[in-house]
Amino acid sequence: MAFTQRNLLGLEGLPAAEILHVLDTTKSFVEISERDIKKVPTLRGKTVINLFYEASTRTRTSFEIAAKRLSADTINISASTSSAQKGETLADTARNLEAMRPDAIIIRHPSSGAPHLLARAVSSPVINAGDGQHEHPTQALLDLFTIREKKGKNGSIAGLEVAIVGDILHSRVARSNLYGLIALGAKVRLVGPPTLLPQEFRSFGVELHHDLRKGIAGADVIMMLRIQRERQGLNFFPSLEEYSRLFGLDRAAMAAAKPDVVILHPGPMNRGIEISSEVADGPYSLILDQVTNGVAVRMALLYLLATRGRSELEREVEARAAS
Amino acid sequence: MAFTQRNLLGLEGLPAAEILHVLDTTKSFVEISERDIKKVPTLRGKTVINLFYEASTRTRTSFEIAAKRLSADTINISASTSSAQKGETLADTARNLEAMRPDAIIIRHPSSGAPHLLARAVSSPVINAGDGQHEHPTQALLDLFTIREKKGKNGSIAGLEVAIVGDILHSRVARSNLYGLIALGAKVRLVGPPTLLPQEFRSFGVELHHDLRKGIAGADVIMMLRIQRERQGLNFFPSLEEYSRLFGLDRAAMAAAKPDVVILHPGPMNRGIEISSEVADGPYSLILDQVTNGVAVRMALLYLLATRGRSELEREVEARAAS
Amino acid sequence: MAFTQRNLLGLEGLPAAEILHVLDTTKSFVEISERDIKKVPTLRGKTVINLFYEASTRTRTSFEIAAKRLSADTINISASTSSAQKGETLADTARNLEAMRPDAIIIRHPSSGAPHLLARAVSSPVINAGDGQHEHPTQALLDLFTIREKKGKNGSIAGLEVAIVGDILHSRVARSNLYGLIALGAKVRLVGPPTLLPQEFRSFGVELHHDLRKGIAGADVIMMLRIQRERQGLNFFPSLEEYSRLFGLDRAAMAAAKPDVVILHPGPMNRGIEISSEVADGPYSLILDQVTNGVAVRMALLYLLATRGRSELEREVEARAAS
Repeated sequence: MAFTQRNLLGLEGLPAAEILHVLDTTKSFVEISERDIKKVPTLRGKTVINLFYEASTRTRTSFEIAAKRLSADTINISASTSSAQKGETLADTARNLEAMRPDAIIIRHPSSGAPHLLARAVSSPVINAGDGQHEHPTQALLDLFTIREKKGKNGSIAGLEVAIVGDILHSRVARSNLYGLIALGAKVRLVGPPTLLPQEFRSFGVELHHDLRKGIAGADVIMMLRIQRERQGLNFFPSLEEYSRLFGLDRAAMAAAKPDVVILHPGPMNRGIEISSEVADGPYSLILDQVTNGVAVRMALLYLLATRGRSELEREVEARAAS
Repeated sequence: MAFTQRNLLGLEGLPAAEILHVLDTTKSFVEISERDIKKVPTLRGKTVINLFYEASTRTRTSFEIAAKRLSADTINISASTSSAQKGETLADTARNLEAMRPDAIIIRHPSSGAPHLLARAVSSPVINAGDGQHEHPTQALLDLFTIREKKGKNGSIAGLEVAIVGDILHSRVARSNLYGLIALGAKVRLVGPPTLLPQEFRSFGVELHHDLRKGIAGADVIMMLRIQRERQGLNFFPSLEEYSRLFGLDRAAMAAAKPDVVILHPGPMNRGIEISSEVADGPYSLILDQVTNGVAVRMALLYLLATRGRSELEREVEARAAS
Repeated sequence: MAFTQRNLLGLEGLPAAEILHVLDTTKSFVEISERDIKKVPTLRGKTVINLFYEASTRTRTSFEIAAKRLSADTINISASTSSAQKGETLADTARNLEAMRPDAIIIRHPSSGAPHLLARAVSSPVINAGDGQHEHPTQALLDLFTIREKKGKNGSIAGLEVAIVGDILHSRVARSNLYGLIALGAKVRLVGPPTLLPQEFRSFGVELHHDLRKGIAGADVIMMLRIQRERQGLNFFPSLEEYSRLFGLDRAAMAAAKPDVVILHPGPMNRGIEISSEVADGPYSLILDQVTNGVAVRMALLYLLATRGRSELEREVEARAAS
């Protein structure tokens, strides 16, 4: 069982065995961040580029810390300083970065599919750090890891009931988790107002719920999604107050949940809207474990993707050119 | 004599012995930046986060260089890329950073008290790099170190006469220096127009002067403050020209000062406004020594605060949770 | 033969022997970026500052990667976070950075001459990463290196015919290349519309062409320049379409060129305007080689300029002060 991917663009289609290999590898990296000297030489002399076309404190910081704890050199590029302003295409930006011989490129982009376009242009491994409303695979992997650590049995989450609650329609986090959870055999229910949870999602083979309490009843895991304040009043929901009253997870709503349920949220949280402070800071909350595990998942991925040498990559480039 | 603080949030209330311990420790770090190889392994494998909600070339750069010369990994987060835009609270941002296991968080924030809020939310050491109009303790420590190096007797600045000139009311630099200078036994005079130097400052037990020449006469040290151009015409002073004529330190005004006086300024300077170029670049000016010493002071503080291991921090967290 | 400069401010007046020394030194650095472990300890414990007053993904990234592969510590300062906003002069910013003991300062600035001003204010080596419409010497050095690698005979480019095509008037890339190419004995033709290629350029002792096909006929090297979209309609050329039809390098225009010609472009490219995709991605294109060589040229320059120790720099400062 090994990780055969050259990139991590999404969890759609990723075999369970490969997902499990990432999770198993992550386990060995968790402990490094708990040491007094949080650094291993794994990626010494490697260059990792963070190419962020959307602002993100937490994801960029998590990747940067992961790379540095592996001794890689990190380069941050933010859209505000990028050639995008000068009219350069993403493919040209990619080829230019590639020509500087990076060992991994991490990209966040507001357009769905941008990481795939990048990956076609370069031979360096590409990691999707969130693309439009498409996928956010490292978030899903850290969620899967966190769930497995707390609720898994013999390293498996098969059969666990997981409720994903909120704006399913626009959420790349929900989408990546859906692929990952289903691949690992979990049972997923999607919960949200009809405007944010269209019937099409039935095609994933999951339950849909438009009532929060019914949706979370019996669930082993509740994964809350962030509500985008800017959707307020745009036909999706009339107001944050209305949304919060119906789909906010507070102590009253928690009465419907199993006593040993665990709560996840990808952050940043809107306290008092999709989740109450009492729940966010409660004993069943794994929200900060998610963040801690995020560094370890990203270390594992960088280890799996960026340790292949230049010569191997070049052989692949030649093979591609020859085909 | 040792440094017992877990954070450096301000100089208010910091005992003289602890301030002196920082200054003594600084002395051993000054020399490192004069070497050909300006790097020691002290903080190898440690993560230092610069969390800046206000732009600052010099302070951020000074902290980043200090951390890197100690071999720490540094992460820069600027407000423009932060989750603050997404409505996350500072406490949540702090807890999220904490979950990534930093060894120190350096924060600059436009709101007074933000570093204290951060320090309550995390177990990592927090260093205040300037908060609103409250404190800027590392600036004051580098000022104290610079004064002691040039004017101290047997390592003491007790009895020295120090005139702080300018916009006392709004200056976090003045406030931190006041606490530090008084703790170490210096005699402080505050000098400025009544609108920028209210009578309440008498409570510090210091002299107030509204006449520049009287204020600096007999002083061993003159510490000029930066005037904020944006206060012009807002009832504080009618115009920069007016302010400059009355409180600008130029060669004419220097006639009132002692011949061996030294001049400090925290920068960035408004040349020709609060200080003339002749004075700023004169032989009594310690302005660039301050910058050089700033790196050493910050190295000393990072050494004192960030070398405690995770296990020690966690024991403290548990003790806190248990109480 | 050695490199005797303390700064790299421009190629104007730089002797051929020194340019060739940089190119020879570059050769030994090219290979490092092709290794699995792309890092040498050459600049360990050195501090390299990137001071960018203009956004630039590629140049900043290239310098940062170069410095990191030499094991230097790098500090990025961008104009948006700089004290320039607070009214500080460039000379004061320079002196302040200098006081933190950097080993090299790399500056990009919209004003011609800013790097020279900086170099007069500090004793640290200064590298010009592009100043206004004046010079971009590291771009020209990487172009010269690329041309020599592909078209040089016994390490010499003397006698080669090089056509530089486009907005000569406003291009710092063209200007630096002109100085470098002429110093090394190449024969240069400048090609562009009369509004962007005034007669004054004859003083360089080069041919001027206002017809693309005549200009590139018989050339060994064609160096395309980026057209600034914002000049459209400002008396320089009526529209991008018009410019492209007359001076865009596409397959049709290439019929006028030698079959073994090579094409350079400093990027970012406006595909379909000054260069067609067919040409940019064709076998004679060296555009990505330029980027790869850019890292090596910058490694060579940092090696040549930043390895001198503090003590040597200080002796020079004292000598300067004494004179």
